[in-house]
Formats: sequence, C-alpha cells, structure tokens
Amino acid sequence: MAAQDADYGLLVPGAHRARGLAGDRQVLRCLVRAETAWVAAQAQLGLVPDSAAEAVADVLTDEVLDRSFDLADLAERSELGGNPVIPMLADLRAAVREIDPEAVGAVHRGLTSQDVLDTALMLVLREALQHLDDSLSQARSALAGLAQRHRHALCAARTLTQHALPTTFGLRCAQWLEGLADAHERLDRLSTPVAIGGAAGTLAGSQALFEQQEDLQRGSACSAQLSEQVLQLHAAWARQLGLEEAPHVWHTARQPVLDAGAALGSVCAAIGRIADDVLLLSRPELGELREPTGPGRGVSSAMPQKQNPVLSVQLKRTALSAPQLLASLFTAASSSVDERPDGAWHVEWPALQQLLRLSLTACSQLAELAQGLRVDVERMEENLRASGPALLSERIVTALKPAVQEADGATGAQRIQAVLARAGADVEAAVDGLAEITGEGPDAQGHALDRQRLQQLCDPRGYLGAADLLIDRTLARQDEREALPGGGARTGEDS
Amino acid sequence: MAAQDADYGLLVPGAHRARGLAGDRQVLRCLVRAETAWVAAQAQLGLVPDSAAEAVADVLTDEVLDRSFDLADLAERSELGGNPVIPMLADLRAAVREIDPEAVGAVHRGLTSQDVLDTALMLVLREALQHLDDSLSQARSALAGLAQRHRHALCAARTLTQHALPTTFGLRCAQWLEGLADAHERLDRLSTPVAIGGAAGTLAGSQALFEQQEDLQRGSACSAQLSEQVLQLHAAWARQLGLEEAPHVWHTARQPVLDAGAALGSVCAAIGRIADDVLLLSRPELGELREPTGPGRGVSSAMPQKQNPVLSVQLKRTALSAPQLLASLFTAASSSVDERPDGAWHVEWPALQQLLRLSLTACSQLAELAQGLRVDVERMEENLRASGPALLSERIVTALKPAVQEADGATGAQRIQAVLARAGADVEAAVDGLAEITGEGPDAQGHALDRQRLQQLCDPRGYLGAADLLIDRTLARQDEREALPGGGARTGEDS
Amino acid sequence: MAAQDADYGLLVPGAHRARGLAGDRQVLRCLVRAETAWVAAQAQLGLVPDSAAEAVADVLTDEVLDRSFDLADLAERSELGGNPVIPMLADLRAAVREIDPEAVGAVHRGLTSQDVLDTALMLVLREALQHLDDSLSQARSALAGLAQRHRHALCAARTLTQHALPTTFGLRCAQWLEGLADAHERLDRLSTPVAIGGAAGTLAGSQALFEQQEDLQRGSACSAQLSEQVLQLHAAWARQLGLEEAPHVWHTARQPVLDAGAALGSVCAAIGRIADDVLLLSRPELGELREPTGPGRGVSSAMPQKQNPVLSVQLKRTALSAPQLLASLFTAASSSVDERPDGAWHVEWPALQQLLRLSLTACSQLAELAQGLRVDVERMEENLRASGPALLSERIVTALKPAVQEADGATGAQRIQAVLARAGADVEAAVDGLAEITGEGPDAQGHALDRQRLQQLCDPRGYLGAADLLIDRTLARQDEREALPGGGARTGEDS
Amino acid sequence: MAAQDADYGLLVPGAHRARGLAGDRQVLRCLVRAETAWVAAQAQLGLVPDSAAEAVADVLTDEVLDRSFDLADLAERSELGGNPVIPMLADLRAAVREIDPEAVGAVHRGLTSQDVLDTALMLVLREALQHLDDSLSQARSALAGLAQRHRHALCAARTLTQHALPTTFGLRCAQWLEGLADAHERLDRLSTPVAIGGAAGTLAGSQALFEQQEDLQRGSACSAQLSEQVLQLHAAWARQLGLEEAPHVWHTARQPVLDAGAALGSVCAAIGRIADDVLLLSRPELGELREPTGPGRGVSSAMPQKQNPVLSVQLKRTALSAPQLLASLFTAASSSVDERPDGAWHVEWPALQQLLRLSLTACSQLAELAQGLRVDVERMEENLRASGPALLSERIVTALKPAVQEADGATGAQRIQAVLARAGADVEAAVDGLAEITGEGPDAQGHALDRQRLQQLCDPRGYLGAADLLIDRTLARQDEREALPGGGARTGEDS
Repeated sequence: MAAQDADYGLLVPGAHRARGLAGDRQVLRCLVRAETAWVAAQAQLGLVPDSAAEAVADVLTDEVLDRSFDLADLAERSELGGNPVIPMLADLRAAVREIDPEAVGAVHRGLTSQDVLDTALMLVLREALQHLDDSLSQARSALAGLAQRHRHALCAARTLTQHALPTTFGLRCAQWLEGLADAHERLDRLSTPVAIGGAAGTLAGSQALFEQQEDLQRGSACSAQLSEQVLQLHAAWARQLGLEEAPHVWHTARQPVLDAGAALGSVCAAIGRIADDVLLLSRPELGELREPTGPGRGVSSAMPQKQNPVLSVQLKRTALSAPQLLASLFTAASSSVDERPDGAWHVEWPALQQLLRLSLTACSQLAELAQGLRVDVERMEENLRASGPALLSERIVTALKPAVQEADGATGAQRIQAVLARAGADVEAAVDGLAEITGEGPDAQGHALDRQRLQQLCDPRGYLGAADLLIDRTLARQDEREALPGGGARTGEDS
Repeated sequence: MAAQDADYGLLVPGAHRARGLAGDRQVLRCLVRAETAWVAAQAQLGLVPDSAAEAVADVLTDEVLDRSFDLADLAERSELGGNPVIPMLADLRAAVREIDPEAVGAVHRGLTSQDVLDTALMLVLREALQHLDDSLSQARSALAGLAQRHRHALCAARTLTQHALPTTFGLRCAQWLEGLADAHERLDRLSTPVAIGGAAGTLAGSQALFEQQEDLQRGSACSAQLSEQVLQLHAAWARQLGLEEAPHVWHTARQPVLDAGAALGSVCAAIGRIADDVLLLSRPELGELREPTGPGRGVSSAMPQKQNPVLSVQLKRTALSAPQLLASLFTAASSSVDERPDGAWHVEWPALQQLLRLSLTACSQLAELAQGLRVDVERMEENLRASGPALLSERIVTALKPAVQEADGATGAQRIQAVLARAGADVEAAVDGLAEITGEGPDAQGHALDRQRLQQLCDPRGYLGAADLLIDRTLARQDEREALPGGGARTGEDS
Repeated sequence: MAAQDADYGLLVPGAHRARGLAGDRQVLRCLVRAETAWVAAQAQLGLVPDSAAEAVADVLTDEVLDRSFDLADLAERSELGGNPVIPMLADLRAAVREIDPEAVGAVHRGLTSQDVLDTALMLVLREALQHLDDSLSQARSALAGLAQRHRHALCAARTLTQHALPTTFGLRCAQWLEGLADAHERLDRLSTPVAIGGAAGTLAGSQALFEQQEDLQRGSACSAQLSEQVLQLHAAWARQLGLEEAPHVWHTARQPVLDAGAALGSVCAAIGRIADDVLLLSRPELGELREPTGPGRGVSSAMPQKQNPVLSVQLKRTALSAPQLLASLFTAASSSVDERPDGAWHVEWPALQQLLRLSLTACSQLAELAQGLRVDVERMEENLRASGPALLSERIVTALKPAVQEADGATGAQRIQAVLARAGADVEAAVDGLAEITGEGPDAQGHALDRQRLQQLCDPRGYLGAADLLIDRTLARQDEREALPGGGARTGEDS
Repeated sequence: MAAQDADYGLLVPGAHRARGLAGDRQVLRCLVRAETAWVAAQAQLGLVPDSAAEAVADVLTDEVLDRSFDLADLAERSELGGNPVIPMLADLRAAVREIDPEAVGAVHRGLTSQDVLDTALMLVLREALQHLDDSLSQARSALAGLAQRHRHALCAARTLTQHALPTTFGLRCAQWLEGLADAHERLDRLSTPVAIGGAAGTLAGSQALFEQQEDLQRGSACSAQLSEQVLQLHAAWARQLGLEEAPHVWHTARQPVLDAGAALGSVCAAIGRIADDVLLLSRPELGELREPTGPGRGVSSAMPQKQNPVLSVQLKRTALSAPQLLASLFTAASSSVDERPDGAWHVEWPALQQLLRLSLTACSQLAELAQGLRVDVERMEENLRASGPALLSERIVTALKPAVQEADGATGAQRIQAVLARAGADVEAAVDGLAEITGEGPDAQGHALDRQRLQQLCDPRGYLGAADLLIDRTLARQDEREALPGGGARTGEDS
C-alpha cells in the first residue's frame, strides 16, 4: 500500500482516541520488542553474549525505529510471505548489523513468524488493556456518582418501548454500571501469554539453540533436561515482555484470542446499551438527558439549530460493529488447521486490531459522556406522571379488589382499571373515582380506604421496590473495586 | 405454528443427539419449573401456604405437562404478547385450578415474563452443561489416550498447507486436547443465575407480596428490611432451582448470556479445528486417519465404494455456524435498551437454543470420533519421509555451515540446500552428497562429520524439540482434571 | 431427534405465519417431489415407462406421505450419511415398491443427494416466494394508501435523533415504501434453478441412463449428441417442477443461494427499518403512531395497563437476526471446496430455512401492521411545533441575512438565531423578534419584510421541499407495479 | 488519529493492490469531487455563475488537495460532528476562498452531509468497479484458457473429501469460471446513484436555492414546477459525476449499499472457493497444482525449503472476512431509523471501505494466480488411478449385474463390488476378477462381456458424462462476454 493509501480513520470518527495503541506503528513496535526481548532472553540463559542483547535493544528508540522501518513499504512487502514478520526481520537485521554485526545472528533464532506476530499482538493488547482500564474506571466512577446523586429521581421504567412502572434514574445508572462492571471484569481476567511453538509447534528451533551450544543429544530426541531449558527460555521471554508464560502451544488453539474478543465484545455491548438509552432519552420529546456539549460538538452541516448526541451515535456505531469482528475471530479459530492455518490465522489480525481500536475509542468516549451527562430530573418526573396512576394498576388493583364489587357485568378489577384509564394523568380524578367505587374500604389488609390511603396507593414513590437497596449493592461493588490497588489489578487467572 | 410445521432437525443431521435438552419441550418444562419453584420459594418465606406449593408442583409430571400444554398451540399464541410466557401461564393456571383452586393466586405473583423466561433458559443451559461436560470428558480422555499411545508416531507438521518439520501424532493430539480443555474450562466457569427484576427491574412486584402480607410500608418507599426480604425470596428461588443467585438485575445487562455464548462458541471452535484436521488427514492422498465406521455410516446415495467422514463433516458444519449465532447474542446485548428491549431480547432466545443444540450435538459426536479414530502411523511416517531430509534444512544447515566452503558462487548454506533438494526423499543420497561437500568435518560443535553424524542430522526423530515434554504437560493437566470429583465440578466463579 | 424434541417455534413468536412453507414437512414434500418429477422426466424422454412415473407420483398424496415417512425418524437417520436424502430414499423406495415394484429402479437413477436436496430447497423457495409476494403486495398497497392519505400531515423529520426540518408523514410512508419496493424487486428477480451435476458434477449418472438404453458410446467418452440428451433430461425435470433450467452445475458455485439470501436479507432490512420507526413513534412521549390492536394483542404478563407494539418488536427481532443468517450463507459459499464440500454445504440448509421462515413471518406481520397502523396527525404536528421556527433556521437566516445588521459583536445571522432560540415554540414571539431586527426589509429577493412575509417564513408548510413530487413518483412506481399481471410477475431474469 | 497512527495495511498483506482506490485519500478526493460537481450543476441550471464552478473545480488538483487537506487532522475533527464532511467543508471553503471568495457561498448550498458522503462512497465504488472488472476479466480469461487446455486432463472428483468419480481438470476450471462469472454479473448490474435528500429527505435545501433566485412560491408549499427544477438539478449532479440519478431518497433505504455488499461478497465467495481448491490441490500429498512463484514469494521465516501458497492463503483470508462485513451492512440497513439514523449509517462506511479494499486485492491476486497456476496433469491422473476401477462401481455394477449370479449368499452386485475392492488400483486384476464372475456375458445391453468390453468399463475416460459439453457451454458464455464492448459494459439495470 502506497503511503498515500493509508487509513487515518476518516471513516471511523473518534478513532484518534485510540492514541497510538492500535495502529500499525504500535504493531511494528511490538513486533520489534518481541524480537529484542527474545535476544535478551537468550542472553539471560547464556545462549548469546549480553552485548548482543544490548545491541538489539538499541533499535527500540523512536529515532532508530523511524529510520529503519517504513510502514508502507513493510506492508507492501508483507504480501510475499503473507505476513509482516518477514520484511520486518530483514529491516531489523539490517538495523542491528549497523549497530553490531555480531549480534545479527541472535535475532529470531529458533522462532517462527507466528511466535513473533502472536506475541506482538498480545503486547498490543496488554498495553491497550491499561488504557481501557483507565477509561472504564473513569466511566464507572461517573456512573456511580450519577446513581448516588439521582437515587431518588423518579422516572418511568420502560419495557417494549412503553411505560411500565416507576423507577429512579439512580437505579437506571446503577444498572448501566453493573453491566459495565461485568464486562470490565472479563477484561481484568484476560491472559496475554507469549506465543511459543517454533516452526511446527514442537519448539525444535529452541532445542537447536541449546544443541548448538552444548554437546547434548546428538541426533537423538530432545531429552527432558533440554526440554526444560527450552521452557525456561520461553519463561524468560515472557518476563522480559511483561506477558504471561504460554500454558501450551497455542498456534492453532486460539483461546487467548477468543477470550480477548469476547471480553472486548462484552465491553462494547455494555457501552452500546448505555448509548442506546442516552439516544432515546435525549430525543426532544423525552428530553430527560443531554450529552455534554463543547465547542463544535454535535453541529450539523445544514441545520444550525441542532445539537446532535454525537458521542452516543459513535458509541452505537461501535456496538453495532463489534459483534461481526467477534464472529470473524471465532470463525478463524474454528478453521485453524494443521500446525499453522492457511488463511484463518490471517483473518484474526485486522479483526483484533479493529476491535481494539473501536473498544479504546468507545471506552474513552463513554468516560466523557458519563462525566458530562446532563440530567433533567424534572422532565423525567413529568414524563412519568403523564402516565398517571394507571402505571400502578397492578398494585392498586391488588389492594382494592376486595373492596370493589362486581357491577354492570364488570369485575371489581375491571372497574378499578376503568377508573384509572378515565383519570389519565389526573391523580385527584383517580382518587375521586376510586373513592366512589370503594366506599371507605376495607382494603386487602383490612385498612380503611380513606383518601390518604388512596393517594398513597397512587403515589409512584411508594412503588419503587428494592431500588434503594439495589443501588446500595451496586455502589458497594464499585467501592470494593476502587479500593483495589490500581482500582483493580489484572490477575490473569484465565491463563 | 401448526404441529405439522414443527422442525425435527431434518436439515441439522445429528441434532437428535441433543436428546431433549434443547428442544421446545425442554424450554416449556423449564418455564413451568421456574413458576413452580417460585411458588415453593414463596411458601418457604411464609407468603403462601405449603399446600399451594404442593399443588403447583403436581403439574410437573410428564403426564400432567402433556395433558395441560400443547406446544404448537402455545407457539402460535406467543405472538400476541410477543413471548411464550403469557400463554404458558394461562394454561398453567388452568392446570393448577384443577388441582387446587386456592393455589392459582400464588402463581407468577410478583414476577414478569422476562424473569421467568430468562430463568428458564438458564435452567436449560444448566442441564445442558452436565451433558456437555460428560461428552467433553469422554472426548478428552480419548484424546489423552491417543496422545500417549502415539507419542512417538512420526508425522509431518504442516504450516500453510506445506510440510514444515517433523512432529508426532501424539503431540498433535495433545494440542487438540489443550484447545478443547481451554474451552471446557470456559464452560466450567459459567454462572447460571436466576433472573430477578420484576416488571421494571425494581423488584416492586416482590415488594408488593410482602406489603400485602404484613402491614408495612403503607404507601411509603420500600424499607431496607423489606428489600432484604425481597432478596431472600429470590435467593430461595435460586436454591429451589439449583441456580445461582442473581448478582444484580440483568434484564438489560446480558453478561450471563454473553458468557454462555462465548464459552459454547469456544467449544465449537476447538472442535471445528479438530474436525478440519481429521477431514484433511483422512483424504485418500494423505490417508493418515479414518473416522470410525459403523452400519450405514458414511454411505453415499450414488457411490457405493465411498466412505465419507460424516462425523467430521457435521462438526465442521457446526463450527462454521456457531460464530454467527454468537454475533446475534452480542448484537442483541448491544441493543438492550430501556428496562426491557423492544426486539433485542427476542433475538437471543432462538440463537441460544440453536447454539446449545449444536454444541450438545458436536460434543457428543466428537466423543464418538475421538474414541473410534483409526490411525495409520505407517502412512504418517511415509508422508513425512516423502519430503526427505530437506524438511530438516534449518538444522542441517546450522550444523554443517562451518564445514562447507563457498564454491562456484554459491554460499555454503546454498550448497547444502542444493544437495538436499537433489536428494529428495532419498536419505542415503543426501548423506552421500553432504559427505562430499563437508569432508569429515568438523561441524559447528567441532565434531567429526562422519556418515553416522550426517545420518543423525538427517533423522527426523532427532528434531522433535520438546514434543515429549509438551505431551507430558498436557497429560498432567488432564490427569489433574480427571482427579477432580465428577471430573471437574463447576465452580460458578464467574457469578 | 425424538419427536418430543421437535421445535414448534416456541422461541420464535409469529413463526406460525410461515404456514407450512418453511418447515421440515415442506422440505420433505419437496424432496419427494424432486424425486417423482425426475421419474416423470425420464418417462418423458422414453427412459422408463409411463407407468413408473405414475406409480411414483402416487406417493405424493398427503395420506401416503404421512404413512410412508416419519420426520423424527428421518432426521435421526440423516446423521449416518450426513444428509436427509439417503433415508428419505430408502423410505420412498419402500413406498413405491408397495405401489409398483417395477418402478423402484427408476427412482433417483443418475442423481446424487445434492441434486435432490438443492432442487428441493429451490422448490421450497419458489413456493415461499409466492407468499412473500402476496404479503409484500398487501403491505405496499397499505403504505401507498398511507402516503396518499397523509400527504399533507406535517411532522418532524429527525436526524441523529433530533428534530431537523419539517416533513410530512406521507413522505415518510413513501420512503418506507420505496425501500420495501427495492427489496421486493430483488425477490422478483430471483432465479430458482434445478440442481444438476450427478455424483461429481459431470452428469455421468445421467449419461449412464442413456448408455444403458441405447447401444451408444460403449466405453468411450460421452458424445456431444448424448450430452445434449442429458441436458434435455434436466430441462424436462425443471419443467416438471416449475423451476428454471440450471445455467451450469452449481454444486459448488452457490450464486443462486447467495442471491436468495441477499434478497431475503434486503426484505428483512427494509422491514426492520419501518419497524424501528414505528417503535420510536409509538413511544408514549412521541405518540404519533399506534399498532393495530386486537384481542389479547400486546398484553403484558404483569402490567394490565400496557399495550405493547408486539408486531414491530417481532419485526425488529427478525431484522436483527437475518444478517447473521446471511453471513452464514456467504461463509458457506466461500468454503465450497472440491466437487461437494465437507461441511459448508450443510451450513446452508438450516440457515436458508430459518431465513425463509423469518422472512415469511415478517412480511405477513408487516402487511397487518401497515394495514392497521393508527396515525395521530395532531400529535405529529404538535411534536413538530414544539421545536418552533428554529427548525427553519436555515431558511430564515438565508432570507433575512441581508436585512439584519451586525450589532453588539454579533453577526446578522447570529442575531437571527438568537431571536429564534429565545422564541422557542412561540411563533408570534419569533415574528415579533424578527420584525424588530429586520425593520421592514428588504429580504434577499428585495421584498418588504412585513409580518405576513415573516409569518410565511416561519411556517413549516412552506418548507417541505419536493415532498409532494416525491410522493407522486413513489405512487406512480406503485401504480406501475400494481398494473402488472399478478401485481408483478416474476421474470427470473437473473438465471 | 495522529498521522503516526495511520494504518498502512500491515496486517492485511496484499492490500497495497487496492492502489489508491479504497483509502482515505480516495474518499477525501471523492468528497471534494461531490462538492465541486454540485457547484457545477448549480452553474448549469443558472443558479450560480460559471466562474464559481471554475473556481471550485480548481481545488481538485493533487497539489491543491494536498495543500488544503490534512487527512489525520480531518479524521480527528470528524468526531465533533460525527462525520468527515463537516471538517472537509471547512477546509474546502478556506481553499475556495483563496481562489475566489465569491464562489464560497455556492459550496454545499442545499446539501446535507449524508448527500455528500453517500455520493462520495458511490464514486469510490464506481471507480473501484472499473478495476474489479479489469482484474476479473483477466482472471476469467486465464481460467477459460485452463479449461480449454486441460479439457482432457483426467482427475479425481472429490465429494466430502473422498474420491467420487473421474472428472477433468478442464471441467473443474470451467466450474470455477462459472462461479466467478455469476458474481461478476452481479457487479455489472450494480447501480451507483447520487444521494439526494437534503437535510431531511425533502429536498427543501434545493428548493430554497430556486426560491432565492426566482420570486416563486413565497412562503407556500413548493410547486410541482419548482420540484421538477429541483430534480433537474440532481440529474445534472449525477451527470457531472458519471453516476446514476437517484431513483428516490435513499438516506434510510439502503438498497444501493446492500446490493454493493452482496455483489462484492459474491465475488469474494467465488474467489474463496477457488483458493480453497488450490490450497488443497497444492498440498504435497496431492501435488496437482502449484502457485506461480516469484522472487521472495512464499518464503518462510524459519524453513528455507518451503514454498507457501501465499496468494491462495490471502484469498482465503479475504473470503473468510467478507461475510462479516456484509452482515455489518445489512445490520446497519435494518436499523436505519428516522430521516438519518443514529449510528447505523456510520457502521456502513468502514465496512464498505474494507470490503472494497479486500475485493480489489482479491481480484488482483486471483488474476495473478490464475494466469500463473502450474498444473501437474500427470499427478492428477496418478491420484485418480490410485482409486482404481472401484471409482466406477456404479457404472460397472449397472452393466454387469445381469451377468452375475448370486453365490455364497452374496448378490451379484455384492460379488462385483468385492472384486473391485480386492483389485484396488490394479485394473488388470479387476478385469480378471470380473471376467471370472461374468463368463462372457451378456451385459445389460445384451453384448458379450469380453476383456475388451470389461476394460472399457474400467476406463475412467469413458465415464466423464457431459464434461466436454459443459466446458463448451462455459467457454461460449465467456466468448460472449469477451465480445462485449469493454468486455462487458456496465448497464446499471438495477437502478
């Protein structure tokens, strides 16, 4: 691809937020880091002199990287071998040769392209996870604040688009937060192992390194002792890179990639659902929420009066796109034939890259949205009250049924419903009507049905269920998370 | 849907293996179980008499179920309310009325359709998990046996379709097993919570139950004490059903469904990859594997001489289908607006049902395939040896380079490669040629390069890397799993 | 699959509308029809006696079909050969043997399973297309009626959820109709060819039929004359079935399936978009539309006062599910290796079946929705007017800019916008404010800016663009369609 | 996105072949072209002076484009309004202002962002179609050449991975070609309309242009005459751009995008299937095909002896990725609410861009693969003959059954099969065995079964069905295509 053909994210607004964490340059940097750490690991096990490791590490400065590698050129040359490792290696060797010709031989010895590319993508993922964690933590704190602040803000719960019962905006925020926290936990548990295997999944290349050095195992199978050394080398590599050791050769057993996909996909889904709610609630006819504004934000090319909820629009864009990327990852894993597949592996790379970019963008946008969300609690209550006491039908009917007789072929329940339907949003009319058909009671618990009692029954504040306790539990979960060092360290327990 | 329009799996061969675990009848049974357990939970908390719970439980016998419910009719009536709970309830109430009219009022009080349907699907999942676990355990044992038995069976490792290096069939089986074990662990970790929420996610319906009983909270917000009772009721429900308590209201926070989808999808991917290998290796030109045969299996309607690998074909079918079902689940979760979504929730049901059916089928078929797989180790070695010592080029060049001079404009490495290319599959010719250009050595380690050493270098058995140790580690992991009670109990740690 | 495990559509509400057109029984019937028509085609070319064709045709009565075939049993036996044709054939031969033992030999001669199954699915598709066409025609007529009837009903056009400009509900209906008509055309163009190929795509099986009869071509390659006869046989088969001739062997070139998938997917998308609009516009805060009601429709299990838009919910369910089925079809086509693929073909069957079922359901539901849609034109105008003249900012600014001076650091345009923002929904306030800053003009066209002119500029009726003409064009297209015999006969021009 | 974060296709090897046709720069160029052509159209209808059109057109040179627009900066600024048109417009107006300040006012008047972006993407598509057509034409010619050249090259037809019957490599190529030609036709039929609509789908913006100019329709609804002028303006725009007129407002009726997706997806599927065959047939154990080689092509980073089929690997990568992009387009279309959707529209852009890039890459790679494919016809026949006469069982049994008696409890057919199974690949042994059990006949046609007749029956050349005629038909279709001007001009009949 000629440089002029690069993609800058023109058609993925917001993607600049991925800030160098998912682009080709980051992939290249991680490819080179994987190679240099490999030489360092070899040095650590005495397979090459320390000077080789030092020479190779010198390539990692921005300046040498930029001088030694041309992304457009690398991309074009990747076609010949079908992956970017081969041309990257040629340029890396040339760069090392300039620094220390002796060190060139230590580069990539015993590795295969897949070891390097899979490991590099895990490095990209690992660095991205830090940023995702930061954004999600900010978003979660902001949502927790909203849940607390609007704990008593009445609003309509809606199911299948229609008003169902009263709820509070605080509880809605708490439920947004729970969904996000669940997905965040999936990220926390991700393991990012180095990829080991060598050319054919046997680690023969690493074996050869030790064979060469020591006079062991001439021509016979690799001894257990030698194999242990091989595994130590890989453990050293993982430590160098801050990644986990590979639990096994995963060239064609792609669970680490599937876990990453599912966790990122879960994050995008949790965000998408919030965005969809914000989009609905900020429609002018609902008017309960507004996105944070800022200079130039939400403007229209043709309609100066408009203020578009552009953050949520972009979040929805991401949420609708992610499931297909996930399907690509699972399709690829399903077709991982032989010891390295003939196309399926190649499907993963851009799918994972795009999923990461979208996730990074979405988490950052969500943090901004949650922190700046403008809440109109009066409008919320107004929308709710427009449905009147009919919204509490279930409760009112249960309470009053014993007190209302059948009449004119209608059951007591039907008569109560009819009163509520007629009253519409007018609470007093409802109370009047109910008083008329109930007399003074008694109700299901044997109480007198005076106006005060009827008014209580018609009050949405009295029918909020366990909303408060649910919010408390959500906030307690959030407090626990925030109390963790780093707001919840990664445990890698999935490895 | 008229009964004549039912699907029997005619277009999903093998699906009969899901044996009553994923069909509509099982869904119905679990819907009814969810409702009866709810009455039992109410009885446990003293909200209704024990007699109500007993009366309702009587519906759960096959005989009463079959008499009380007609699936085709229920399906058709589901359209009116958009879900099957509403007509199921009408029929359930009628059935309970016949047993104990007093008990009818206890049915479904305080629940909403989504509580019941989500919980029922978790029940379906929970029961299916037992069977998936059984099949996977069988398949894993069989693969472990193959890994052990064929630990020394030489074969070609293939990358991008071409011979790469030697490996062993035992290691390939170990790698199949690792992928399967990874996915199996994802299943083990699944949580299957009851769904709580009530009509609007506030648990107001449950609140009303306690309000009615006790004279508490008249018209005011639900007290903390009452809320705790509400949660106790839900905990009792979960215990009755053998499900986990809900960590929070998940009506629109669908992580339990996403986790299930990702775990089932991982299983299908791990299986698909094995099936793809079997399909390749049982092609007549490769001939390394054959599926187990049986009466009528693998026959063709037109070609009597054929023996088709039909199990693997069906496994591949499943593996190619599952990712799209997963995408449906994530798309649905992304659009879970309001307190109950307007279509997204409905997308999940058949996607999860079909994913379960395919997974159950695939695990059962895989167990049979792994247990009966026929292995031709001679053909494996023959295929490997057809590539000759050239397959070991990397190793041979490394060892001999120091001993071979440049000549005729070719480097030492190139001269070695040329000898290997000329020799093809003929090891002796390779040794002759190498002897000619190396003299008697010395090699990179300073050893004399006599014919014995050259023959060793050309022997694939000597270049198997850490294959043996990798197999050991895999088998150790498997032993650990098999040592668990029940071969690995579910821990539900994801809840 | 045991009969008790059949799916009745319990989790796909509405699917009973597919009325026998997409279920397993219909597939079976079409499989048998494909086989019987093949014997008839042979008879037509003199390869078998007419009596054989007659005997075989006798199987096609409902009574003999039901007696001869058991779907659950067929489904289970399908696993052995990996497709349902093999057990169907065994039962078909048994049924024919009872009628006329001589005729048995004529059954399936020269065909392969794929010929029969692909052809049967094309028959299923062809019959379904008739019904899709009927439903779509009804829906289109209803939408055309709405477009005409509400041609002048003012409402807000919304972009990115916010009010943009005025439009009319008639134009919105016209645009719904255009999308539906586009998709409908894609269905019209579909070709449903018979599948030819024989066991290996060479038609060798058909060749053998002629070889046997005449003493031609002993042992030598098939002559051009014989090949022509073979093709005539296939043409006769197509005619018997009312399908198109196959343009070529499409065992592994799956364009007919992809075209069907894309057309059905387009229909679902066009419907989904309408449903999404209806769902939004029938939210209580918007209140512009309501779904048709009916006994029991839209009820809630917990909230008696609710009226849910269940048709649109189910349409949205379908629209969100269809793209993944389409992806399955394209994935399958991409992997159609060899002369018959090892799993990819098998992916297609249930995907196409489910896509057909969902499409049939959706078209029928849409027809009902469109025919019964309840429109509240007053609420539409009220919602529009809530945005006030600010909605016409672009137009007003353009007209008045020349007449308004800069003042207090604000441009003329900004001053106009400020007036509109202050006025909100109050037109008179806007006119007053504008009068104040414009004096009496002149405007951009040199006219005096009296109150009448200002009022005209603030009137949404004057800024509807070409709405009327666009509706006219849509209705003209619809009239053209309705003028076709059968409301638009299928032309099969894609064959 | 900072420039350093651009994607160069490092993870999509081969994508450089899309050569400036699908990258962000091309999108930008087409955005600007859409805007400049709009001014030209206005000039044509007398709405602005010709000088404005000329001034604006001056921006379109590479030099001014590069000076006026910075892609990374545009991408970043796109977030504010949620699409790239708004910042592009700001920079375009600045660039025009430098050339002719008078002309600035003519830019974008009456358009909305969606008009411009949709039209620009149609321009990108239209230009890409030319290149796709070229590559496909080359690939088709090459496949036609192979079909003709290898018309008599015997090889095994394989179904479900196993040998089925004999076929010829020429026929396989013909079937590849048919699949590709079908998909190519879908591309040919694509319509690429301009997008009209204005801010709200009413064309009110265009109306305002004419209102301003002439003193028509003051404040009243747009007259039919004015509406016709509006449509003429759009027709002029389409002509300026070489696009089709829009049949209707397709802001939310996305059939043009769905058609493009389905056609591109069909091309990728047709190519994927060819690549899968090449990958299988070039496995060393089959050895029937080899990819064209070239300097550096197919090399491995670790295994010098390897020659990887990298073109096919990349084609398979594309084929496995495309269906998910298609699902994204259909999901987006399904959610196209209101007059401009709140996220769904945004999903389309990168999906279509990536699908175009992959398709362009794949068509170019396929052309190269088809032109350089190396065919080993001897190996093909050898592989076929390894299955021996058993492959012709169906034919042999049919011919000989009348001549073979039951014996030892085996039917005649079973005895024949047993002979063939025993003989394996040895034709003479088969003939001997058959001679023994048949005596001298007669066969089903009454002929003597001498050795010559038995040998004929065992000869795969005699059982090729209509292979020759099928190839002829395919080549005739190809000849017809090549005879078209330009090898098949686009007709746009789908518009």
